[in-house]
This record gives sequence, structure tokens and C-alpha cells, in this order.
Amino acid sequence: MKTNQFLIIGLGRFGSSLARELIELDYEVLGIDKDEEAVQDMSHILTHAVVAESTDEEVLRSLGARNFDCGVVAIGDDIQASILTAILLKDLGVKKVVAKAMSELHGRVLEKIGVDRVVYPERDMGIRVAHQLVSPNLLDYIELSKEYTIAELAVPRCLNGKSLQELNPRARFGCSIVAINKPSGIIIAPAATDVLAEKDIMVVIGTNNQIEQFEESVS
Amino acid sequence: MKTNQFLIIGLGRFGSSLARELIELDYEVLGIDKDEEAVQDMSHILTHAVVAESTDEEVLRSLGARNFDCGVVAIGDDIQASILTAILLKDLGVKKVVAKAMSELHGRVLEKIGVDRVVYPERDMGIRVAHQLVSPNLLDYIELSKEYTIAELAVPRCLNGKSLQELNPRARFGCSIVAINKPSGIIIAPAATDVLAEKDIMVVIGTNNQIEQFEESVS
Amino acid sequence: MKTNQFLIIGLGRFGSSLARELIELDYEVLGIDKDEEAVQDMSHILTHAVVAESTDEEVLRSLGARNFDCGVVAIGDDIQASILTAILLKDLGVKKVVAKAMSELHGRVLEKIGVDRVVYPERDMGIRVAHQLVSPNLLDYIELSKEYTIAELAVPRCLNGKSLQELNPRARFGCSIVAINKPSGIIIAPAATDVLAEKDIMVVIGTNNQIEQFEESVS
Amino acid sequence: MKTNQFLIIGLGRFGSSLARELIELDYEVLGIDKDEEAVQDMSHILTHAVVAESTDEEVLRSLGARNFDCGVVAIGDDIQASILTAILLKDLGVKKVVAKAMSELHGRVLEKIGVDRVVYPERDMGIRVAHQLVSPNLLDYIELSKEYTIAELAVPRCLNGKSLQELNPRARFGCSIVAINKPSGIIIAPAATDVLAEKDIMVVIGTNNQIEQFEESVS
Amino acid sequence: MKTNQFLIIGLGRFGSSLARELIELDYEVLGIDKDEEAVQDMSHILTHAVVAESTDEEVLRSLGARNFDCGVVAIGDDIQASILTAILLKDLGVKKVVAKAMSELHGRVLEKIGVDRVVYPERDMGIRVAHQLVSPNLLDYIELSKEYTIAELAVPRCLNGKSLQELNPRARFGCSIVAINKPSGIIIAPAATDVLAEKDIMVVIGTNNQIEQFEESVS
Amino acid sequence: MKTNQFLIIGLGRFGSSLARELIELDYEVLGIDKDEEAVQDMSHILTHAVVAESTDEEVLRSLGARNFDCGVVAIGDDIQASILTAILLKDLGVKKVVAKAMSELHGRVLEKIGVDRVVYPERDMGIRVAHQLVSPNLLDYIELSKEYTIAELAVPRCLNGKSLQELNPRARFGCSIVAINKPSGIIIAPAATDVLAEKDIMVVIGTNNQIEQFEESVS
Amino acid sequence: MKTNQFLIIGLGRFGSSLARELIELDYEVLGIDKDEEAVQDMSHILTHAVVAESTDEEVLRSLGARNFDCGVVAIGDDIQASILTAILLKDLGVKKVVAKAMSELHGRVLEKIGVDRVVYPERDMGIRVAHQLVSPNLLDYIELSKEYTIAELAVPRCLNGKSLQELNPRARFGCSIVAINKPSGIIIAPAATDVLAEKDIMVVIGTNNQIEQFEESVS
Amino acid sequence: MKTNQFLIIGLGRFGSSLARELIELDYEVLGIDKDEEAVQDMSHILTHAVVAESTDEEVLRSLGARNFDCGVVAIGDDIQASILTAILLKDLGVKKVVAKAMSELHGRVLEKIGVDRVVYPERDMGIRVAHQLVSPNLLDYIELSKEYTIAELAVPRCLNGKSLQELNPRARFGCSIVAINKPSGIIIAPAATDVLAEKDIMVVIGTNNQIEQFEESVS
Repeated sequence: MKTNQFLIIGLGRFGSSLARELIELDYEVLGIDKDEEAVQDMSHILTHAVVAESTDEEVLRSLGARNFDCGVVAIGDDIQASILTAILLKDLGVKKVVAKAMSELHGRVLEKIGVDRVVYPERDMGIRVAHQLVSPNLLDYIELSKEYTIAELAVPRCLNGKSLQELNPRARFGCSIVAINKPSGIIIAPAATDVLAEKDIMVVIGTNNQIEQFEESVS
Repeated sequence: MKTNQFLIIGLGRFGSSLARELIELDYEVLGIDKDEEAVQDMSHILTHAVVAESTDEEVLRSLGARNFDCGVVAIGDDIQASILTAILLKDLGVKKVVAKAMSELHGRVLEKIGVDRVVYPERDMGIRVAHQLVSPNLLDYIELSKEYTIAELAVPRCLNGKSLQELNPRARFGCSIVAINKPSGIIIAPAATDVLAEKDIMVVIGTNNQIEQFEESVS
Repeated sequence: MKTNQFLIIGLGRFGSSLARELIELDYEVLGIDKDEEAVQDMSHILTHAVVAESTDEEVLRSLGARNFDCGVVAIGDDIQASILTAILLKDLGVKKVVAKAMSELHGRVLEKIGVDRVVYPERDMGIRVAHQLVSPNLLDYIELSKEYTIAELAVPRCLNGKSLQELNPRARFGCSIVAINKPSGIIIAPAATDVLAEKDIMVVIGTNNQIEQFEESVS
Repeated sequence: MKTNQFLIIGLGRFGSSLARELIELDYEVLGIDKDEEAVQDMSHILTHAVVAESTDEEVLRSLGARNFDCGVVAIGDDIQASILTAILLKDLGVKKVVAKAMSELHGRVLEKIGVDRVVYPERDMGIRVAHQLVSPNLLDYIELSKEYTIAELAVPRCLNGKSLQELNPRARFGCSIVAINKPSGIIIAPAATDVLAEKDIMVVIGTNNQIEQFEESVS
Repeated sequence: MKTNQFLIIGLGRFGSSLARELIELDYEVLGIDKDEEAVQDMSHILTHAVVAESTDEEVLRSLGARNFDCGVVAIGDDIQASILTAILLKDLGVKKVVAKAMSELHGRVLEKIGVDRVVYPERDMGIRVAHQLVSPNLLDYIELSKEYTIAELAVPRCLNGKSLQELNPRARFGCSIVAINKPSGIIIAPAATDVLAEKDIMVVIGTNNQIEQFEESVS
Repeated sequence: MKTNQFLIIGLGRFGSSLARELIELDYEVLGIDKDEEAVQDMSHILTHAVVAESTDEEVLRSLGARNFDCGVVAIGDDIQASILTAILLKDLGVKKVVAKAMSELHGRVLEKIGVDRVVYPERDMGIRVAHQLVSPNLLDYIELSKEYTIAELAVPRCLNGKSLQELNPRARFGCSIVAINKPSGIIIAPAATDVLAEKDIMVVIGTNNQIEQFEESVS
Repeated sequence: MKTNQFLIIGLGRFGSSLARELIELDYEVLGIDKDEEAVQDMSHILTHAVVAESTDEEVLRSLGARNFDCGVVAIGDDIQASILTAILLKDLGVKKVVAKAMSELHGRVLEKIGVDRVVYPERDMGIRVAHQLVSPNLLDYIELSKEYTIAELAVPRCLNGKSLQELNPRARFGCSIVAINKPSGIIIAPAATDVLAEKDIMVVIGTNNQIEQFEESVS
Repeated sequence: MKTNQFLIIGLGRFGSSLARELIELDYEVLGIDKDEEAVQDMSHILTHAVVAESTDEEVLRSLGARNFDCGVVAIGDDIQASILTAILLKDLGVKKVVAKAMSELHGRVLEKIGVDRVVYPERDMGIRVAHQLVSPNLLDYIELSKEYTIAELAVPRCLNGKSLQELNPRARFGCSIVAINKPSGIIIAPAATDVLAEKDIMVVIGTNNQIEQFEESVS
């Protein structure tokens, strides 16, 4: 068990998924929700799970909230409870407070009251899914900057058996294949003679335009 | 304007973010919600936005649902409406139907009735945020496989001015830096003499263990 | 006690009537409802009756759902619960799953997720009562095919004392009287000399048209 | 169009199915419901469909309720409205009033206030489905008396190619096959030489015990 | 304690007042209400007071309902419960069933199901108060027939010191003073020489018109 | 039309009955209720009927409330509205304000704020019905004082054909028969030779005890 | 502990603040609220705190309400409960009853039923804040009469170092500085040579106009 | 009309009182509430009154919120709306934002997001009323510091006709009478020969203790 401890307030879909992953990453997690059923569902997974009203300062204090390295306000739909809980965590001295925002306005309030990081799960996931919908081969991606992206692309059937030399994306589109994930193992910085197969996955770095054109040319 | 057309049903936080991004990617989007306010908020952004009850077959038919390339069921909290809408879209002949699931059980039903892709935004985002919380320098990541990950890491202060040769992650941890994003521009496949600065971002490929150990050694 | 076992989920008017009849036919029945009162009303009738939430996989598992020969989802008005329960029963391996549909759309989903038989009690009963309303002597009927029907008809006063020979429906209308139910006992394949009385009930086989004309001629 | 006219009050699942069937049988139907959506769904099917409060005597009077041959109170869940509507129809002089009862107690009140026929759709359908569940070959049946039943049975595989003489249910079980429905046409009062095939349907008359034993011996 | 026993169902304003008066008249009263607070308020006043659901036949049976001489259904606003309770009392064999009706239609149903006496407290009290409002001296009255009334009238100031001879209502208006209630005692069939005083109360018999004119002449 | 005008606030069962009777007694009535349906039901009966919020001073003023001779606060279940309306009527200068009380405490407040007369319809009717229940022959009665009552009694079968001389209630019980209502007409101050018949109604004056004993002796 | 005792009914924002201050002023306070949480929050602060329904006479009696010197009805939003509680306190003989009014009409009723003092916290506070908003230096004030006010004014920067002689408000505006509150202590009836500093607070008496002009001249 | 303009959001008891007073002080006020009735009640009093949702940035912008000198968030019970509105006003650039807090926690959030002044009307009024309750002669007061207070005291009967010299509070209790408000006019800095009368009001400055002892000695 690692020494970092997380306090997750709100065990809805986002909060419970977050808490579960932290546990798998071997951290201690105290989960709080005012709904008894939500707590019960997580009680055998988390280090501790407690039914409690997080807007009550006494309650947070008695749970030792201030001793946590990081508090996550993952409250679902109650903006008021989210704000009041976040300010209590800050005032109690929790080192890092992360909060989920339901709207931009909500996010602005969270930042003003000193929340260290505001996350917008549905908004971010909406954007991510949009990109995957328009690029059928796009499995995942990281936006490095406004211009550059790393894309994880499925190798389409038409590229089956082609070597990187033949494909030559650098020359033709300006983007580079920095890794190929094959069933037999990952090839980092692949050579020009490496050959693609249909089930492979390529990791491509380039500008948005370069990757888009590369992808379209092979779809 | 590209020729692909998207039908987004449910304009909540996830659906509206998805719809907005598709519009920015230059696709046509018809948005549907039964809540008038949600439709109004999106009406000046989307190609069309309509107040309608998506579980009514006649309504979907009259909106020409079957002519869309892709239908996304992004309904917020009403599992019944989500399932009934999804089956209607499939039966009307929409080529690709994507649906947001609120729970695993819900996801199972969606798959059984023929939905082409089921997404779990809150669950996925919970996992993503968990990783970022435990690795303060981790900005984003792609899981290439159960073992391999591409990580986008902020260069910590202690690496300021170090060359890749000095750092040598390949030799010490087994993972490779495949790109460095500097304010002056991106360096793909950086040379051993390239030097890191505090505001740079490194793109690292390796096994989860390798990246974790690399990250911990520099934090 | 026979060896077949039934699991009835939903103890409303349809479910409780079904469960009660199975018990009278000497089968074991486990009844489940989330409403305590509904369970209490049936607890002294059924083999077992349990207050439980049927959309919770753990609950169904702990009740040993998979050991039942047949599961009937007789949930009243909650389409979502009906669908989720049905898929759980299928996934748990219940051999035969029967479910009550509230609408055609609901029925379509149930079929897609693998329900073995979908029943529409109110719709079917509506059709049955319609036939009885328009034919005052019609007591009950079976549709053998789109064309042929067996009808159970009360003998009207005007046929009192008439022999089958006199009545001769075969010659006049094309339909046959295959049985006469008299207070003294049933006559199967009655002879031409058998005589009808007002309290008797005739069982007639023929096309819908033949029976309709026969019935009208004697009303 | 036939001259009989039906007034259906309550256009839920039972009422709308009943109304629809009467229309198909070529009768005039006026449908009434207090829910606008229910009326709209039926308005293009029924002769007339009206949004109205059936417990208001003036309303029923102005709709000419007393001129109908038969009024059916098919109100879903509101026992009070069902009773008040039924008494109004009787007092207005509707010749025949049929009402759906939700419980035995409700049925007793309906009879006391003079309703001509009380129906229990869910209860009756529950019983019917119970019989079909326990006898896999049983397609439908009519209870002629407490003892005698006509059953419509699917011919099971094991009887394929057997003649009635070989089968001889009369001698072995006491029940008679009065008709065989074959794809080629129906055979009424079949001869001993008639041969059964797997897709055929037999119509059997006998006591409950005889039919049950016959069915079990061939399953 | 007298032998008559009363079962009062519904302990609202009407029912509790009725029950309280019966207790003061020295009868045994069992009061039933489904509201715990209503029962508690009456529990120290009535012979017995029970929290129970009166539409449940078993409940009424277990309370020994059929042994009561008279059952009063004084249920406040729930017409359905009123009707179902009344029919249960009749069916259980309660000798005399009295029920409070909320509307004429409700009253009609109660009569049809065999209720022995239907009362309309608010309607009757409305009529009674109307008469008192228009005749300031009228204290109370009994309608003997459509034409004749006994009125209890306060003696107005202007009649102070007048003898019946002077007043002579019989000759002037046709109505008779059959009693005078004086502080000193009641005078039945008063003599012509009896003198009225301001605090006296006269009991007058006559037609409605006669009394009205008499009253107006002295107001 | 008489000149007195009544303002009735609250057109529930009590208020509407009161208003209707005043109209029949030929007075002008303005009825007010905040429920549109209640107003509509009375609009063709009353002089005027208005949908209005009676706790709004401006509304009452604009309806000319202060010009009415008498205002009746007949509000059903809203004690607050009843009190606020009553004080507004008093403050506006309505000559006589009558209000219906739902409880003694409510009645006390009404008296304190200056209401001229407080009525308790359900309580009073409960008492009245109690008396009628315990005395089967008692049709109606007036309490003249704590001791004396006028009772309207049905003549029981056992008194059929008896003269007053034979019956002699004065001598035997102390109470007097002051009138007999016969189908042929009313007899005021009947003679000793007058004979009772079963359908007659006697009007008796006496103490409660005398009348009770008289009634019991003839029941 | 002083001998005066206070009964506070309603522990909302106003009531709890009032109760808390009385405790700090060293009086005994019994707090009552029907909301358990509100009572719990105050239970460790007040002498006694009880969950009770204050409109129930028995409850108030059993709490010994009549022994309190002063009862405060601080009920939040329920006008009916406020009125009924107030009349009960008066009837029980509480010496002084103070009640919070939610509107003028409510206040009028409270006065009519004998409440000794009616307070309007939100209305009064609204007025007070209005004055402070328009005069930035105004800290607090007392209205001595319609014309005269005592104002507590912050000394603005521009008066820093000025003596009262220089400022001379009496001569220039007609108002007098009766005290200066300095960090070092208060100066009552300050001399002409006393000098103002920026952090000082002046207490000024004068007409509204005089003070307004004085304030504007120095702002 | 003065040039300062006020934007009042929330027209409940506090907000409407505040708005009304500002109008009387001759300032322009725009009132906003989401409740139509609240707006209507104020529309003839305020410069402008608008039904609007104050948490919608577009709405505030279109009403020209940023042009106001001062915005007051007087929202009644919705903490979320209060916070979101306050941050919008700050972000839009309203010079001074004042907000009403419902609890300390709420107040802390308001301060963190930059609200210029937080007011607690009910809490402050509770404290003020507490002081008045314990000192019957105390009409109003200003707390100059933790120690010093100006009190406005009614002159009790026992001081009638006494000169300040006789009373001499300075010598006996340490506090000073700085003004006497007499029906004939106010006397500022009264002389030792000035005489008190029962209807006069004294303005006293001193420490809390001094004033309390003075007050007790004369009560």
C-alpha cells in the first residue's frame, strides 16, 4: 500500500470509477456519499466507505478530512453541495482539492474558491468520442498542443503487408509513426523495413492536419 | 461541410459537448432533446436542434432518422428511454448507433439489442483522472495494451537543463522518449543531445512499470 | 409436488394470478416483488415470496435464480426494470424466460435481448373481450388459424328442443358441432339425433365466416 | 358498417386493444380518455375519440352516451373513476355496461351497482399463461366445465408419422381428437387412418386429467 | 353502558364529532382510521380506537365488524375507500350501515350498494346556515314538510313586554307559538297572557311563509 | 330579489350548498374560489362567481367586498387562507363576517380577529347524526336548552290507531305533543281525541330524559 | 444566570440567532422546533431544546409554556403555525408574546389576536442595508424620529488629521459629533481641539438632511 | 433622481424591503426575480422590475447588469443560485456586489468569490431583537465597539420630572446622556437642568456594563 491517501466525496458513476481505479493503483481511498446504497455498493472495494453529509463541517472534521493528501469532490448533480464541500475541504487544509464541474459557471466558482483542479468529465469525454466517431480508425489520442497530436490508429485492411518505407507517411503527409503495437509485442521507433498487418496499431505524431490527411488516405 | 451526418439524441453535458465538437470538426449535426431549454441552448450552434420525444417511432421517422450515417444516444439518466431510442434507431436502419451506458447492466442490454458501440463517459473519465491524480506530472496517456502506455509527462524542475543522454531513460528504466513538446515547437524522435527545460512536455512510451519508475525517479 | 420450478418477478394482478394458478397446478413458485405489501399478500400462497429488487444481479444470484426452469418477468409498469431483469435472468442461465410487454416497442426489446416468449396480457384480453361483446352467445374461442376457429357457444332459447339434424349447421353454414356440454355431462362427437336445450353449450369448429353466420342465424 | 355502437371509456392497453379489435370487426366505436396523448394515439383508428372526464354526468350526456348499445369501462387504475363512470352509464340508460375490475372487491361493487358484465383481464390472462407454461405443447384451451377442456396442442416430434389408430388417445387416455389443423387445411372429425405430422395442431376434448396424461405421455 | 355498539370508520371532523357524541350518549364506539394521529387523538375518548385500513376485508373481519349494530363510514375525502368500506360492511353483515357522501354521485353509488342511510353533512349544514343568515332571529329550525316548519326564534327587543295576546301571531300571520323558553324555565303551550321578554326564545310552528312574515314584521 | 347581498368565499361542499340555498331564498350571492372548476360549477347558479385569491387585499377591494352585507369564509382546508381572508373582510368593513372553523383552535383565532359568527359544520352535523342514530324514530330535533328539546319523531307502528288520550305522554313521561304532521295536513296543538297513524310525525317538547323515555317506551 | 426565561419557538436563522444571543446575555432559553435537525444543532447551546409541534396545546402545556416570562414565535414560513402558536401562548398566559411576521397582513392578524410585539426582521434589515448602501461611510444608525438620526460614520481619508474646529459640522451642516471612537478609546462629547484620524468612527446627531449633506461633503 | 443605480436580484421580504427603501431614498432600482408574482407586486414601485433567471449570464448581460453601480444578491433560499449569480455579477464588472448569506458557510463562499459585502439579515436581526427583549426600555442601539454602545432608551415612568443633575448617570454609572428626544424637539448635548418626561427618549453612550446598570436601576 502506498502512503498517499485519497478522499472521494460522491460515489456516482464518475466518483466510483475514480475510486475503484485508485484502489487498483494501490492507494488508500475513503469514499463518502450521502446515499446509503451508493456507499454499500463500494464498501467492499474501498479502504473505507461512509454515509455522510459532506456539507457539514463537523462531519468532515470527524472523518479526519484534513489528513488526506487529496480530496476529490465528485458530487453528481448538486452544485450547491459541490461548492460548499469544496470550500470546507480547502478550509480544513486538504493539500490538493480536485472537483468535478457541471458547467463552466460552476467551474468558475470552484476556481475562485481555491480548488486546485477542476475537471469536466462529460464535456471532455464528449470531445474525445466526437474525434473517434469521425475517424473510424482512431482508437485514442493525446492533444500535445493546439496543433500537434499523438494518435493511436488501427491499421486498416488496405495497409496489410505494407512496409513503413512503402507507406512513408513522413514524406507524404509530414507525420511520423513512432511505435507499432503488434500482437507479438510493441516496436518502438520502428525501422523502415517493419511491415504493418491488419491487427496492428500505429502510434502517429504530427499536426492535426497531417494526421487527418494520413488517416483519410488510408481509410 | 463534410458529407457525414450525425444525429445526437440527448443534449446534456456529454451530448452537447459531443455535438459541439462535431460541428467544429465541420460535420452536420441534428440534435434532439425532450427538454426545450436544452434544445434552445444548442440551437444556434447545431445544424438543426429539435424538441422531440425520441421514444416515439413516428417522431424519429418524420425527422428522417434513417438517413443519418450515425446516431448517438446520449440520453442522461433515463435508461428506459435510452434503450427504446436505441432499438428504434437500429430498426429504422441507422448505419451506426452509438449509445452512452449508465451502468454495466445497461451496457449489456444496449449490446444485445445491436448497438454498434457503447460508451461509458463517466467511468472512463474516472479512470483517466485517477491516473493523473497519482502521477502529478502525467498530463494525459494512451493505453496501448494492458502492458504498454504512451504518457504525456510535464518535465519536472529537477530535469531542467538535462540532455536526454544524461537522463537516458531507455538504459535506466527501459522506456523511450519519442517526442519533446517545447514552446519553440515539437521535436519528434529527439536526439541524445536534445536538452529538456522545465516547461517542456515529454512523450514517453514504455510498459506501465517502466513509466511509473521513470516518473517516480524524477518527481 | 412436481419438479418444475417457476420464478415469478412482479406480483401485480397478472403476476399474482399466474403464480396462484401455478401453485394450484401443483408447481413450486418463488415470487419476488419490490413492494412489501404485494409480497405479504402472496406469502401464504406461494412456496416462497421475497421482497427484493430484481434489477440487482447479486440479489437474483443469491436467490438461486439460475436453478429455476422458468422465469417470468411480470413487472407492472416499469419498462426499465422489466428489461434489466429479463437480461439478468438470461445471463444467469435461466432456461426459459417469459416476459410481459407493455407495448410493441417494449416487446421488440425483450425479443432482441433473448426473451423466449413475450406476452401481452391486456392486448390479448382486449381482443378476446371484443369478440365476446359482438357475439352475445360466444363464451370463449380458440383461433386455430387465421381462418378457422373453435367457438364455445351458449345454446340460445330459439334452439331449445332442436335436434342436430334439424339444425344441421354443416349443411347450412359449413361448420360442425364437435361437442355438446349438457348439465348431465359432455357429449363428444354428438349424433344427429342429439337434442339441444337452452342451458347447453355447443363447441363448434369452422371458418370465422361460417361460425359468424351460424351464430347470427340463431341469435 | 354494422349498427351496434360501442362506447369505450379508458384507452389504456386493454381498452385500446378492445377498441381496435371492435373497429376491425366493423363496429362503430367512440373512445374516451382523460389523457390527451392516449386519445391522440387512437384518433385515426376509432370512429371518434374524445378527451373527456367520464365522471362528469354532463360530459357523458353531451356525448350522447345513452344512445350506445354497449359501454365498456376500461379505466386503468382509478377504482373511484371506474365506479362513478359505471353508475353514470347505467343511470343514463346504456343497455349493456361492461367494466374491467382491478380486484375482487372492486368487482363486487361493480356488480352491486348493476354492471352487466365484470371482466378481470390480468387475472384471466395470468391463469391462461400459467397453463401454457406448464404444458409446453398447449397453445390455447377452453374450459368447458370444471372437468372438461378443449385443448389446442402442437403435435410433438415423437408423434410424427403416427396415425390416430396407432395413437388411439380415446382408448388409452379417454380423450378425443376432434380436429387436426394441418398446413394443407383443417380436418374436422378426423378418421383413424389420418396421420399426424410435426407441424400439425390437434384439437383434443376430454377431462383435465385425461388431457394432462395424454400430453405427458407424448412430451 | 347501553348495549348498542357503533363502529365509526374515519375519525375526521365529522366522524370524531359523531363518535364523541355517541360516547356521551353512553354507547360503545370502536373508531377506526388509517391515520395514526387521528386515532391517537380519540383513543382516550372512545371505547376502542384502532389504526387500520378499512378497505382490507381481513382487517375488518379481525376487528369483529360484523358484530356491530351500526357501522358509520365517515371517511373524509377518499370516495374509493368510502365505497369499498361500505360494501365490505354490508357483506360482513353489519345490520345498519350509514355513510357520508361527498357528492350526489357518490351518494347514488352508496345507495346502490345497499347503504341504509346516506348523509351529506356539509350540504345539509350549508342549507341550515343559509337560513340562519337570512333570518337574524332564527336560532334553529326543523322542516316538518315542504310547507311547514318549526322555528326557534330569539325574541327581538321590540317585543319586550308584549303578551301573546297583543302579538297574536295566529290571527295576524297564521303561525302558532307552541312554547316559550324563558330563563326561568320553559312554558309549553303558553297562555295568551304570557308575556315575552328580550332574552326569551319562542318556538313557532307554521308554514314557511307565515313564519317568514312573522319574523320580518318583528325584526 | 331582496336587497341583502352575500359574499361567499370558498365554494366547496359547504360553501356551495350555502350559496345555492341563499339563491333559492332569493338573495344575491357573489361566490369566490381560487379553483377554476369550483367556480365554473356554480357560475350558472350564483349571481356572480369569480376565480380569485381571497387573501389578496387588492382583489377583495376590486370585487367591492366592503359593499356586502355579509361575508362568509367557507374555505375548506386552508386555515391560513381562512384567517387572512377573514381579517381582510373585517378590515374592509364588511358588516357581518361568518367563518367556518376546522378546529377549536382555528375557531378561537377567528373570534379573536373579530369574526361575528364561527360555524363548525362537520362537528355540528356529527352531533346531530349521533342523536338520530341512537333514536331510530328521531327525524330531527332542536335543543332549546341544555335540558329541553323539541323532537320530530316518526310514529312507530305500535302507536298506529292510538289516540293522544290513550298515549298520554304528558302524564306518563312529562313531555307534550305540540303538533302532528299527517299526510292530510298538520295539526297544531292537537286534541286528546286526535289519533296517530303509522306514517304520521309527532312534534314533542320535553326534557331530554322525558323524550328519551317516551321514545324508548314506544320503540 | 438571570431569572428571566425565554421560550423561543422556531429555530431557523432568526430564531437561532436570537436564542444564541439571549444565552450569551446569560438568560435561560427553551428552544422548540418541529425539525429534529434544527433542534440538534442548538441543543448544546440552549438551556433546553425540544422537538415539538407548537400548534398542539397539550405539547405547549406539558413543556410548561405558561411559566415563561416571554415567548417568541420565530416560525419561518408557516403563517398558520405562527398564528396558532401565538394564540396558544397568549391563552396559556405567557406574559409577553413576541412574533415574527412574514407580511403586513400576517402582522395584522398577530396584533388582533393579542401578540404584544410584532417584528419584521427581513423588512427592517432591508431598510437598514439600503441606508448603508447609499452612504458608504455609514456603519450603523438609529432613527430617533422621522427627522432626527444618530449615525455612526467611518472617518474618511480626507478628514485625516482635521480637528473638530476645522471640520465644524455644527456650523456648516447643523449636526453635532457627540462621540469619537478611536483605537485608543472612546471620547464622549469631544472638544473642538480633538483631531480625527482615518480609522476613527464618529457618532453624529442631526436631521437626516444635515447628516446626508455632511456625509456627502466629506465623501 | 440621483445617479447611483442599484440592481436587486431576489424580491423576497428582504430584497423587496431593500428595493423599496432605495426608491424612497430617490435612487434608481432594477429588480429581478424568477417568480412572476414577486415581480408584479413590485413593478409599480421600482424603476424597472423584470422576471428573469439570474444564473443565466446572457440574461444578466442583456439587462445591462455591468452598468450598475451596485448589485445586491438578495436571493431567498437557493444557495446555488445566490453563488452563481454573485460570481456572474463580479465577472460582468459590477462595481460593488453585496450578497445575503443564509449561513456562515454560504457567507464564506461569497467572500471567496469576491463579493464586496456579505449581509446576514436574520442573524443580525435576531441579535438586535434579543437585546430589546432583555431591556424593555431599549428601543434601538449601535455597538460602537465590543465595549461601547449608544443606546436609545425610553424614559421610564420613575424618571418623570427628574433633571439630569438629579439623575447624574455619569457620576453614578459612568455613562453619558448625549441627547434627549422630546415631543417638542430634540435636545443635543442636554444641560444638567434639562428635565426628563415619561414620553421622552434618551440617547446614552457608555460601556455595555454602564448602560445595563443604568437601565436596571431605573426599570
